[in-house]
Amino acid sequence: MTALRQDGFLGGRLALWQPVAGYRAGIDAVLLAAATPARAGQGVLELGCGAGVASLCLAARVPGLSLTGVELQPAYAALAGRNAAETGLPLEVVTADLTALPPGVKARSYDHVIMNPPYFRRDCGSAAPDPGRETAMGEATPLADWVAVAARRLRPGGRLIAIQRAERLPELLCAAAAVFGAIELLPLAPRPGRAAKLVLLAARKGRQGPFRLHPPLVLHEGAAHLGDGDSYTAELTDILRHGVALSWPG
Amino acid sequence: MTALRQDGFLGGRLALWQPVAGYRAGIDAVLLAAATPARAGQGVLELGCGAGVASLCLAARVPGLSLTGVELQPAYAALAGRNAAETGLPLEVVTADLTALPPGVKARSYDHVIMNPPYFRRDCGSAAPDPGRETAMGEATPLADWVAVAARRLRPGGRLIAIQRAERLPELLCAAAAVFGAIELLPLAPRPGRAAKLVLLAARKGRQGPFRLHPPLVLHEGAAHLGDGDSYTAELTDILRHGVALSWPG
Repeated sequence: MTALRQDGFLGGRLALWQPVAGYRAGIDAVLLAAATPARAGQGVLELGCGAGVASLCLAARVPGLSLTGVELQPAYAALAGRNAAETGLPLEVVTADLTALPPGVKARSYDHVIMNPPYFRRDCGSAAPDPGRETAMGEATPLADWVAVAARRLRPGGRLIAIQRAERLPELLCAAAAVFGAIELLPLAPRPGRAAKLVLLAARKGRQGPFRLHPPLVLHEGAAHLGDGDSYTAELTDILRHGVALSWPG
Repeated sequence: MTALRQDGFLGGRLALWQPVAGYRAGIDAVLLAAATPARAGQGVLELGCGAGVASLCLAARVPGLSLTGVELQPAYAALAGRNAAETGLPLEVVTADLTALPPGVKARSYDHVIMNPPYFRRDCGSAAPDPGRETAMGEATPLADWVAVAARRLRPGGRLIAIQRAERLPELLCAAAAVFGAIELLPLAPRPGRAAKLVLLAARKGRQGPFRLHPPLVLHEGAAHLGDGDSYTAELTDILRHGVALSWPG
């Protein structure tokens, strides 16, 4: 990871370093932050924080959080630390495997655990040519372990918020249903009437509420991409450009 | 189960006997039949066929099927047999526990297995006052067993089609993901922008296709019930009143 670039997030409010060629956070990290209903004074743990984009977008929206990001790859953890330092946002970065968290993280319990786990299974398809991108995109730790670690680190009633490719919903949902209650699923559809490409999942530790499948949140206006604009819906523009929280349906 | 009544399905094309007070099939059975892409000459097994509404709606739409319905409760199985005889549709009814199928059913493999399993868990809530309704609505056999039996009775490439309350999607999806591939989920939303109340699941035995989460099929027009009409969308009216097949999104 030699070439770096500063990318703008939240309408340019956050300029964050990312590798030019490795794993690069996109709207999924911003949506994950927007979907996290954290309030000042709460503690948030991000598993697999990469360069820190989701945690820092959350910190930019909600002042007064205590944020911890765990990242396996030292180069990404260093970038997350640099991004935190340069933006002045309160993210503590820990370089660790999420299945072997250091005592300082294991001693705490958090109000929210957020995660954007690798999207592709290591056992399917070919590896990415960049080894950092490969580790970030391809799965070494099973999704069920991510979810189980999140459950252990949450306080009773605490929330897991995860974003994942829709293709992997069965694995994510089965893992979550084994240890969480009050699961809500928000499909993210690229356009009206199209299959979801991403899903947001929220769940609570030690709560018994029923499962809910919400109507999809549509990302882009219109049936197809037309013209030069980015075509995001008004709600997405608010989230991506103006740092507004995502409203979970009631 | 003493008092019976003939209810009209598919716009009155099918008049089927159901108990007045026990478990009564509604639009879920009709939607299950509509969602089953069976073709003439194929074999279809319905697990838990009740009075036979789903299988008979399917037989009415697709001539030339060989249909078998398995029903645990003798009174409902007798009704299904009577409904088949009176309509002249080719449904063979077997009175059996789906976990102990008779040799004649176990010896066959089917192109499609369809099911509308009990919606409520026996371990939650109170039992229904009518014992037949209680058995049909409350679960004695775990959902995972229904799905596993379906997988055993399908030919390679054969399809499971199930309808279930959205609240129980995690159990249904986890059970299906353990033994099926190419799973598709079609949420059924009562109105535009509302959470799904029901889900249709399709899956194939021995196929590796990716999981797909389709946009919801909306049942009713408008944001709320107004006036005297039933307010179904045009697509639902075609399915419920005119016996048209449900089109799974491509």
